[in-house]
Amino acid sequence: MVEIITIGDELLIGQVTDTNSAWMGRELNKAGFDVQRITSVSDKKEEIKDVLEKATQRAKIVLMTGGLGPTRDDITKKTLCEFFDTHLVFNEEVFGDIQKFLKGRVKSINELNREQALVPKKCDVIRNPMGTAPIMWFDYNDSVVVSMPGVPSEMKRVMSERIIPRLIQKYRPGIIIHKTILIHNIPEAVLAEMLTDWEDDLPPEIKLAYLPAPGRIRLRLSARGDDAKTLETKIANAVDGLKPIVGDNIYGDEDLPASDIFAEFFRNTEKSLALAESCSGGYLAHLVTSVAGSSDYFKGGMVTYSNELKQRLLGVRERDLKEFGAVSKQVVEQMALGVLDITDADYAIATSGVAGPGGGTNEKPVGTVWIAWAASGKGVVSKLFNFGKYRERNIMRTSETALIELMQMMKKGEI
Amino acid sequence: MVEIITIGDELLIGQVTDTNSAWMGRELNKAGFDVQRITSVSDKKEEIKDVLEKATQRAKIVLMTGGLGPTRDDITKKTLCEFFDTHLVFNEEVFGDIQKFLKGRVKSINELNREQALVPKKCDVIRNPMGTAPIMWFDYNDSVVVSMPGVPSEMKRVMSERIIPRLIQKYRPGIIIHKTILIHNIPEAVLAEMLTDWEDDLPPEIKLAYLPAPGRIRLRLSARGDDAKTLETKIANAVDGLKPIVGDNIYGDEDLPASDIFAEFFRNTEKSLALAESCSGGYLAHLVTSVAGSSDYFKGGMVTYSNELKQRLLGVRERDLKEFGAVSKQVVEQMALGVLDITDADYAIATSGVAGPGGGTNEKPVGTVWIAWAASGKGVVSKLFNFGKYRERNIMRTSETALIELMQMMKKGEI
Repeated sequence: MVEIITIGDELLIGQVTDTNSAWMGRELNKAGFDVQRITSVSDKKEEIKDVLEKATQRAKIVLMTGGLGPTRDDITKKTLCEFFDTHLVFNEEVFGDIQKFLKGRVKSINELNREQALVPKKCDVIRNPMGTAPIMWFDYNDSVVVSMPGVPSEMKRVMSERIIPRLIQKYRPGIIIHKTILIHNIPEAVLAEMLTDWEDDLPPEIKLAYLPAPGRIRLRLSARGDDAKTLETKIANAVDGLKPIVGDNIYGDEDLPASDIFAEFFRNTEKSLALAESCSGGYLAHLVTSVAGSSDYFKGGMVTYSNELKQRLLGVRERDLKEFGAVSKQVVEQMALGVLDITDADYAIATSGVAGPGGGTNEKPVGTVWIAWAASGKGVVSKLFNFGKYRERNIMRTSETALIELMQMMKKGEI
Repeated sequence: MVEIITIGDELLIGQVTDTNSAWMGRELNKAGFDVQRITSVSDKKEEIKDVLEKATQRAKIVLMTGGLGPTRDDITKKTLCEFFDTHLVFNEEVFGDIQKFLKGRVKSINELNREQALVPKKCDVIRNPMGTAPIMWFDYNDSVVVSMPGVPSEMKRVMSERIIPRLIQKYRPGIIIHKTILIHNIPEAVLAEMLTDWEDDLPPEIKLAYLPAPGRIRLRLSARGDDAKTLETKIANAVDGLKPIVGDNIYGDEDLPASDIFAEFFRNTEKSLALAESCSGGYLAHLVTSVAGSSDYFKGGMVTYSNELKQRLLGVRERDLKEFGAVSKQVVEQMALGVLDITDADYAIATSGVAGPGGGTNEKPVGTVWIAWAASGKGVVSKLFNFGKYRERNIMRTSETALIELMQMMKKGEI
């Protein structure tokens, strides 16, 4: 039903990542519109016309962003005139907006600014409250083509306030509801097999998608129809059927990063947290502190990369470091208990592992990670993992796993 | 010359932002290939076939990512069979890779894992060192179609190591040489003005791109031609002309993250480093430890989020915390000296600021950040910054600035 066209050489050479279309896809989908294709093209007239022609044949709604700036390489407006067989006219109202917008920002209005007030005669101009490029709405047979600036803040504002409401009024799409279930510790193929029967029993209105990330899967259910209440019930029933199959491996039911899920859970426990990191190297603390308001429950932590600091700051026994090595149950548990003691926190997490690429041995290959969780007055538990051979992935999986496992153990009263 | 097709419903509903194609565009461009179009389509057979047909008519090289997972919604492989008029065959070698990859990760290989070893008969299989989905290379008339997994780490590895080298060998694009100069502390518009004359004098073979990131600009010079030596000389001359204009604001001349540039510099000094973080919350330690081999010089650090820990662990004076607040010259300098003392490191960095969104005041608005650098026997220096109103950006800019400034001061012998 909808196609998105994003215009600009910078997108094709990877200078800029196109985040506009994902945002538009999300907002349109929420409003009940399906995006069926996204195309990025360069600032070349023939390219833009070609894509526009094909897109208008396939889709009722074509939304374009980019190529409306005042510089020479932006040629979208002229291309639209050729495509719709019209010409540019000077729009006083738009020029008034531009003058108002630039007042105080530039010394004087120049020719390029004046040119921005030129708009195709056949279009319906939507004013841009945040910039100098006007938005152009074309009614074309039974279809709509809209051209917007590529600056994300300008595009988002005008999409939310003007374009989407007008599209809903014109096309009255159905209702679509999404629910995302977050699952960890089950490989995608295993999960798919576990869910075969459940999936076969899903009502036809519900579509399923597996969105895997290292160590985790987001399982997305989407229901489509006319009645929100019916759809919500169907989704709720499907989720109810899922729970006994996947059980404790479900760690959340909102489409949020693990750090946000953990933060929301932990904040409500009104407990405090401390960290002692070796292989995660500060990334675990970063995950915790990336969430606003974390200072309410996060006391702090240590990144004890050297054995010397593990002993001196956390009280890890030299004997155990020698006998078992830094990557061991003994050491990681002493780290967790040590930081718990020093910080007076209610809970503590410690990590120690071989992040790689160097440092692996036969006995402890790269990816070997010990994580320990300690709770004031409740002792300490630890688990051994192997996250594979890539440093970056090891650091991330160690950190996410540490948070998710603590949350799951606390929910079950295991710690 | 190149078209990219990214496949997956999750891209169209905006659940996942397509970062693959920007990365691919960047790498292909570096290798001398121009990307002319990027298309994202849903996991629908007819859609994929349609895009594939048009793309192969327009471009010599078509690179596809996504839709190769073991679950039912991934149908790229079957679609490729229909498109290339072939069928799936079981590939023992791929199955061997899958078994090896899954060993220790799953209890047993299931039917879905076996199915991943099915590949189109007509294609040339490229093995995937990081996952279970094989990469498929099709020679098609004079064109090439390659299908890769959508998981970024898997795609990136196989693109860098296998696909791009093979494309270069097959198509021998002209020579393109890039040089990236890393500049910090100058806004883009100011830099552009400073460089006007220099830019006008550049030889026609050299193209310039400003790649801005918060607080930094990567200035990329690209020279295109037939003779590598001539191009290298021209680039070197251009860089020589740049240095007197931009001066100390240049902190590197390789297109690498600030953390890598810092690591290479700091390793060679044979000094050790420690950190005391407040507002950067562990991200600074993460930047340092994200580089392999950092354990050689990084002793460790503290994330002292609470004032209590700033006092107890780092010896910050309670009186100063009360009088000047945690975000102050006094406190950040005591943090740096404190961690230097505790860890016996040669250098230490400390951060304290208002990351936001809460915690700002009139006097110290969100984005106010103090950074201190201390050196054993040389005392401590500190600087005040304001990085703006976004939490994530404040955390990142604090951390990168802390490393770059230390490096620049050490180069000049200021610390």
